[in-house]
Amino acid sequence: MSKTVAANITWHEGHVERAQRYALLRQRGATIWLTGLSASGKSTIAFTAEHLLVESGRLAYVLDGDNIRHGLNRNLGFSPEDRTENIRRIGEVAKLFADAGVLTFASFISPYRADRDLVRGAHRAAGLPFIEVYVRASVEVCEQRDPKGLYKKARAGQLPEFTGVSAPYEEPLSPEVVIDSNRLTPGDAASRILDYLRGLSLLTA
Amino acid sequence: MSKTVAANITWHEGHVERAQRYALLRQRGATIWLTGLSASGKSTIAFTAEHLLVESGRLAYVLDGDNIRHGLNRNLGFSPEDRTENIRRIGEVAKLFADAGVLTFASFISPYRADRDLVRGAHRAAGLPFIEVYVRASVEVCEQRDPKGLYKKARAGQLPEFTGVSAPYEEPLSPEVVIDSNRLTPGDAASRILDYLRGLSLLTA
Repeated sequence: MSKTVAANITWHEGHVERAQRYALLRQRGATIWLTGLSASGKSTIAFTAEHLLVESGRLAYVLDGDNIRHGLNRNLGFSPEDRTENIRRIGEVAKLFADAGVLTFASFISPYRADRDLVRGAHRAAGLPFIEVYVRASVEVCEQRDPKGLYKKARAGQLPEFTGVSAPYEEPLSPEVVIDSNRLTPGDAASRILDYLRGLSLLTA
Repeated sequence: MSKTVAANITWHEGHVERAQRYALLRQRGATIWLTGLSASGKSTIAFTAEHLLVESGRLAYVLDGDNIRHGLNRNLGFSPEDRTENIRRIGEVAKLFADAGVLTFASFISPYRADRDLVRGAHRAAGLPFIEVYVRASVEVCEQRDPKGLYKKARAGQLPEFTGVSAPYEEPLSPEVVIDSNRLTPGDAASRILDYLRGLSLLTA
């Protein structure tokens, strides 16, 4: 709804159309959801893809533990209920970002299939692309990498409910992209994701 | 941190710099927070500003009751505690949007000064502009407008804790912009906000 007033400025009582922002950005918004074990390489892949996209003039943004767990979700812990609410909120934020036209990477262990499927469903209901990327790596390989010493702490019983050690990880049943992180470099993995985005014509408006 | 690999793709273990996204968008991210009574005109002003910005090639986005209360904050009610958590979450999301380079309008009654000040503080800590816009209108004028019949319901006791009727509204003490909504059209109000953004050099990178 809009009406023109004397000053030649039209009032608006509704949002800018999604397509108008997409045209401005020469891209379509989408959520690229990276799921996998701790130390599987999710965030390095997401950051690498973000850099590649921004360097080529696309607007991309990474939601990850750093900017979510210390902010929006600082009042949540790691119980199953809190993990579910954590993923629900992140999914809603990603949806808003995608609606705004941003290529939005969400890099979270997100171990429960039902939680990820709720986010997928919310995107579908909003008519927004949801691309689930399973960053697959064995617990053994992740535990060898262990850059933050988390597996070590978990094995010592200092981190309760640690995914892959003392809490389950439920593999995606039909992810849009599978990255074999035992074999692929983060650069190759990021390229593969960008190819997928191009295939969906997300990098044009 | 980054390192180059064989395929000539550099890995990244950190976010794209804020300035890089700002250069891409030819603007700087910011949160423009509109506070005021129900029916004061906040959302019409925000939507009008959003349209003006996007039509001139800027990326703007409005967070409002529609896209927040049915999504991210659907598990919150209207008690003082829930209102505080509502505003906290919205503030965190606005911060993420501003960090991504978006001119982000948040249009919420946000009646408590302390809640708004927490959002301001979170932006300051993150080095992001927070522009508080007080959309001032008397309860009488808002009650005459009453486009959704909410004041009528509140007076009939059907809406408990309704701001301005049965719950307090705490005016901002030093907002960046004051809009006298009893006198200004939404178009003029939106123009005034855009002038303020230009004054801060937010519409160039």
